[in-house]
Amino acid sequence: MNRIKLKDLDQYFGKEIEVQAFVENIRDLQYVQFIILRDGSATVQMTIEKSEEKNASLVELFKELPLESTIKAKVLVSENPKVKLRGMELLPIEVEVTSRSKNELPIDLKDKEKTLRETRLDYRFLDLRRKDNHFLFECETYLEHMMREYFIAHEYMEIHSPKIAAGAAESGAEVFKIDYFGEEACLSQSPQFYKQMAIAAGFDQVFEIGPAFRAENSHTSYHATEINMADVEIGWIHSFDDVMDMEEDFLKYVISKLNEKYGEEIKSTFHVDLVDTSIPFARVTFEEAKRILKEECNFVGEREDDFERQEEMLICEYFKKKTGTDFVFVTKFPFAARPFYHMLDSDGNTCSYDLLFRGIELTTGAQREHRRDILERQMIEKEIDPKSLAFYLEFFEYGCPPHGGFAIGIGRFMMQLFNIDNIREATFIYRGPTRLNP
Amino acid sequence: MNRIKLKDLDQYFGKEIEVQAFVENIRDLQYVQFIILRDGSATVQMTIEKSEEKNASLVELFKELPLESTIKAKVLVSENPKVKLRGMELLPIEVEVTSRSKNELPIDLKDKEKTLRETRLDYRFLDLRRKDNHFLFECETYLEHMMREYFIAHEYMEIHSPKIAAGAAESGAEVFKIDYFGEEACLSQSPQFYKQMAIAAGFDQVFEIGPAFRAENSHTSYHATEINMADVEIGWIHSFDDVMDMEEDFLKYVISKLNEKYGEEIKSTFHVDLVDTSIPFARVTFEEAKRILKEECNFVGEREDDFERQEEMLICEYFKKKTGTDFVFVTKFPFAARPFYHMLDSDGNTCSYDLLFRGIELTTGAQREHRRDILERQMIEKEIDPKSLAFYLEFFEYGCPPHGGFAIGIGRFMMQLFNIDNIREATFIYRGPTRLNP
Repeated sequence: MNRIKLKDLDQYFGKEIEVQAFVENIRDLQYVQFIILRDGSATVQMTIEKSEEKNASLVELFKELPLESTIKAKVLVSENPKVKLRGMELLPIEVEVTSRSKNELPIDLKDKEKTLRETRLDYRFLDLRRKDNHFLFECETYLEHMMREYFIAHEYMEIHSPKIAAGAAESGAEVFKIDYFGEEACLSQSPQFYKQMAIAAGFDQVFEIGPAFRAENSHTSYHATEINMADVEIGWIHSFDDVMDMEEDFLKYVISKLNEKYGEEIKSTFHVDLVDTSIPFARVTFEEAKRILKEECNFVGEREDDFERQEEMLICEYFKKKTGTDFVFVTKFPFAARPFYHMLDSDGNTCSYDLLFRGIELTTGAQREHRRDILERQMIEKEIDPKSLAFYLEFFEYGCPPHGGFAIGIGRFMMQLFNIDNIREATFIYRGPTRLNP
Repeated sequence: MNRIKLKDLDQYFGKEIEVQAFVENIRDLQYVQFIILRDGSATVQMTIEKSEEKNASLVELFKELPLESTIKAKVLVSENPKVKLRGMELLPIEVEVTSRSKNELPIDLKDKEKTLRETRLDYRFLDLRRKDNHFLFECETYLEHMMREYFIAHEYMEIHSPKIAAGAAESGAEVFKIDYFGEEACLSQSPQFYKQMAIAAGFDQVFEIGPAFRAENSHTSYHATEINMADVEIGWIHSFDDVMDMEEDFLKYVISKLNEKYGEEIKSTFHVDLVDTSIPFARVTFEEAKRILKEECNFVGEREDDFERQEEMLICEYFKKKTGTDFVFVTKFPFAARPFYHMLDSDGNTCSYDLLFRGIELTTGAQREHRRDILERQMIEKEIDPKSLAFYLEFFEYGCPPHGGFAIGIGRFMMQLFNIDNIREATFIYRGPTRLNP
């Protein structure tokens, strides 16, 4: 028996049907009770006339039923233009309480500002009942589906790389250690090596959307110890321009699809400007960006070979003013700021980029070094023992297509798209150094 | 610059283009060299006439180039009906070796039987180059996409539940322990509690496709320590029949889509009969199944409250003969064989089922107990301390829709669909008690 969603009720005017819902509100007036019912799709009013004798027990029930309880009800669906909410009301025939809430809720469901964030996170299952939160994850669902639609349309293969790894993915630091049948293993920081393995396996282009784990003791608003990441790796490229071209095309597709379907509601719910996907992403070399920062923004960062937060924000502001874009590719970072596997150009800079989105680093992309000997040399230069990554070096010993790729932290992407100030709010269940619950 | 896929070459007859590929084979004859090139989409022949002076250096190159090296080549695409492979050939103008293979490969790429499975798994990146393997993961990509297409069309929300958990998901046993900033945590065995949390949060119906971890010291052909699982949870159900109905509809959709697109190639590659999705799945109670086993199959299993492998196989054979179905729902398992959170019916059996697929358990599904007090009672009956799952019990204290769901191990599903004898072959990278590499 299929459930009837509350949003579809107008197909049933004049009919007796069964509905199930949360009891969102009860207004108990002198002659009537107005009950607001809610499911994930919509809200609707149920009206109980107190004068009708058959309603006597229902009136008693709703007099003392705590809000947020769930009910199953046989109702008559009635058109009524006088009812503000959707011009309809449900007239109950039979009501069963399927689950009873406590009288007092530990957080405020109407106004998130009235409860401390940490308390809301403790009761995340209640926090997520708020309409803006429900809508946020409806959007995330669609966003990811559009990502996958793009990948499938372009014939990417999907991989599921192992999250339990023998060594650290990129370095020995900042990984969670696991006891693996007495052996020491760790949680994967990134599918990096395995998506490259897929390329070596002749999977021309691959993607993965899955968890990545970072044992960083960071308490910022945009770090988490477990993140949901979209990873991409593309074989047979000519240069990292191919990777940037693909990423720009991909993001424009995904964002424009989201805008099409949810744009108006996003604007009104989150008070945010939609990304204009008709504007090309800015592209600037790291060197030129540093010059702009100094000469145009009057700012010199502490590090010569990388950016700090302030610089990322200023560069974004600069290009936003100049062309209206929300996205800036900064290219050719110095090798000092990059991992060993980034390919180097003839100047010794990396064939890599950061994509900044509204003042924050969204992705790092690069062409990878696929020539085994050079790769080993770069490892040694970074003081990594090639023996510790022997399994990885092997991928490049039996023919490996030139390739590159990038990764997007989806929580961070959601934050910036929806103007959310903290990744804790943009993640279904956040994990941080001091948060392991729920 | 977009790469031209080998499968699309017939759009370029008479043109000079660039291609990139693995060198799959070289036949060096007296007057000509035939080079077979391969990418993920197709193979094609490149022909080098030895008599042509301009080819001299190319002839030298391919005389000593190891197979499986990768090249980038400027070529003329030429129609030639005499060439068996696709009636076309590439005439090279310029060739660059982009990566050079070693002379000897550690596994046989043509015939998987010639290399031990464990050696093939050691060199999984080469093993996956075999055509049947490449095709298998092309099918898996499509299969998962069809799953998600179904979910999206039916308005499911996607969740990404945390894989790092404070306690064990279902019990203290068989979980991998993690050192979480000095605190003990574990890897999630299943999104069970979190998909139920999503229901308590008012997400009407949810799905997740992601990793699950089991620290079982099992060495069978169908267990792994890290699996890729599709999880479903449905709110506002009436009984677990709703869950079975959905699962049947869902699987028929996914399989029929797969058959439509890849059916013929699946049959010829894997020598397997396609599932006939027009036949209803069989449904039988656990009690009736035990009777059939005894009376019709002459078999009495060791356990009264559960099945052993042999019984699952016999029940499947029985219904296959009877109606032609490959799927059997066995319903109403005794509580002894089930976790504490399965709802009980008036006879004390669980409102749950196993779905058997060609002799193996594919999923367990159930209606969950959403009434807090009964849930706690069932916990105690299973000797679980309610305090250890206080965070979970809270989900049911502020109103929670009646709900149920199921999970499918995708590797196991692939095994059975494609007649693969071992989950190690149906997983991108397998993890088991003695395998943590690559």
